[in-house]
Amino acid sequence: MKVIKIGLLGLGNIGTGTYKVLEMNRGEVEAAAGAKIVIEKILEQDTKKKRDIPVDPDEFTQNPDDIFKDPEIDIVIELLGGVEPATSYMLEAMKNKKHVITANKAAIAANFDKLEKCAEENDVMFRYEASVGGGIPILNALSSVLRGNKFEEVMGIVNGTTNFILTKMTDQGLEYGDVLKDAQAKGFAEADPTADVEGHDAANKLTILIALMFGAYIKPEEIPTEGISRITKAQIEDAKAKGCKIKLIASAKDLGGKLEYSVKPTLLENSHPLAGVSNEFNAVFVRGNAVGDLMFYGKGAGPLPTGSAVLGDVIEIAKIIMLRGNV
Amino acid sequence: MKVIKIGLLGLGNIGTGTYKVLEMNRGEVEAAAGAKIVIEKILEQDTKKKRDIPVDPDEFTQNPDDIFKDPEIDIVIELLGGVEPATSYMLEAMKNKKHVITANKAAIAANFDKLEKCAEENDVMFRYEASVGGGIPILNALSSVLRGNKFEEVMGIVNGTTNFILTKMTDQGLEYGDVLKDAQAKGFAEADPTADVEGHDAANKLTILIALMFGAYIKPEEIPTEGISRITKAQIEDAKAKGCKIKLIASAKDLGGKLEYSVKPTLLENSHPLAGVSNEFNAVFVRGNAVGDLMFYGKGAGPLPTGSAVLGDVIEIAKIIMLRGNV
Repeated sequence: MKVIKIGLLGLGNIGTGTYKVLEMNRGEVEAAAGAKIVIEKILEQDTKKKRDIPVDPDEFTQNPDDIFKDPEIDIVIELLGGVEPATSYMLEAMKNKKHVITANKAAIAANFDKLEKCAEENDVMFRYEASVGGGIPILNALSSVLRGNKFEEVMGIVNGTTNFILTKMTDQGLEYGDVLKDAQAKGFAEADPTADVEGHDAANKLTILIALMFGAYIKPEEIPTEGISRITKAQIEDAKAKGCKIKLIASAKDLGGKLEYSVKPTLLENSHPLAGVSNEFNAVFVRGNAVGDLMFYGKGAGPLPTGSAVLGDVIEIAKIIMLRGNV
Repeated sequence: MKVIKIGLLGLGNIGTGTYKVLEMNRGEVEAAAGAKIVIEKILEQDTKKKRDIPVDPDEFTQNPDDIFKDPEIDIVIELLGGVEPATSYMLEAMKNKKHVITANKAAIAANFDKLEKCAEENDVMFRYEASVGGGIPILNALSSVLRGNKFEEVMGIVNGTTNFILTKMTDQGLEYGDVLKDAQAKGFAEADPTADVEGHDAANKLTILIALMFGAYIKPEEIPTEGISRITKAQIEDAKAKGCKIKLIASAKDLGGKLEYSVKPTLLENSHPLAGVSNEFNAVFVRGNAVGDLMFYGKGAGPLPTGSAVLGDVIEIAKIIMLRGNV
């Protein structure tokens, strides 16, 4: 069996989750990939942390060039998060003819054009399923088997923290501030929740969805974005009385060649497929001119679901490497 | 641009839908496939029917060998329906080194082993996305990017007719017989509705889901199957009072190596993601050991959604033909 070697950038929560899923399901992953998958080197400062996975200390490096310049490494998986140095590392990996996988929506949204162009110029694959909707295989579907559609619309609940907060406000009749404190205590919201609650994370994901569905690169800062921090208990009660739910919706619509897009709290009738998406779950609703209405639902975050998406990308890249015969 | 030529078996509703989607979205389909897509020949007796598509009468043939023996044809799309002659035609096409696409759940469920073996022996691709859930890209996801999961469970609403009937019984408080008559009048149910209402169609689809997810070929006649024809208004009212809905669920579960499976009317709590799937919509809920809970929702039937799924298979096969370089 051929061997495909991986260089991993970052062994935090998502890196550890990806490593775990590969250990847990090695038989399934390798059968699907048609190749043995080896994590060869890991860029990580914190080599002492207890991670509950069997990492060989020799796999660690503090020098990214040990990965980029290693001719044995086929795929670089970037799981550092943040725009930099993640973007520069991905570009450097591509220039060294490595295929690149990332879960990093902030880096892709900020530099979509540069990253796609660099991948093309270097004839390498660039995949990022985990960047939108965590484990939900939405990007793969949009860019493969659904590609024969003209897309008309997308509406997504793509941020788990805000959906968790809105669900608790709705189900328990609580004010925003109280639910946020509870979510922070339980680890469902960050100490600084700004990126989530003000809609910036959702805008990053909408940039990626728009690029794949409509072929337009709209930067997140160009997307009119409103978060949930000013939603009151009274507004939620009012929505309930009308048979509706308030959800933070990232949406884009093709109005005959003109795109309309936003991230904002939106009133959905209870019968809308997205209205039933509760707690930390994510879902993306799309409409195509042939397929009609579709919805994809699942866990938008978490180490194992995100690891599942990263390994899905590994499987697809491995299959194409094997077909090209250039291992 | 390279040309990929298709032989179409059957130009009924689904064949016409597939033809229409290709005409409507030719730019999108060919860009995604990386090849020009030409429907070269069509096996169809009824050449005079008004179909609202620009078919050249010269494309029609009444002799399937005109397609199987044509060395120019790369892909055969089988849309005749029924077990025979569809199965024999697909096997014959494969033996003549044609890749095969079908929407025919009855033929796949009856002969899954023979068809898969024949495809493998002849080194051709065999794809059937449209056979389960119509336009919903569930089979592609299960057999590609989700393949790195050990699957634990599947529950599907995979028959639109029965879901339509149960939804109307629930929403309008009507008896089964009255809703069936109305559904037949509106074209949502066949004159002989047995295959749908007694669960046989759902069992065919469950056979396919089990084969892809659990690697076991359980024939539809081995699946304990109960339809909806004995569901009463009183049972539906009783479910409602308990905060539940009755849905016809095709399910399979891996109980530590032992598979449990059935098709039967099932009580679902209103909070279950499948409970909100109404009217003729389909949805498939799956659980994987890494990805957790996922649901895929969309139109389970209809010429355009089904055509979208068939063309998704064309795109995927075309991409691999181009990678292999054997056009």
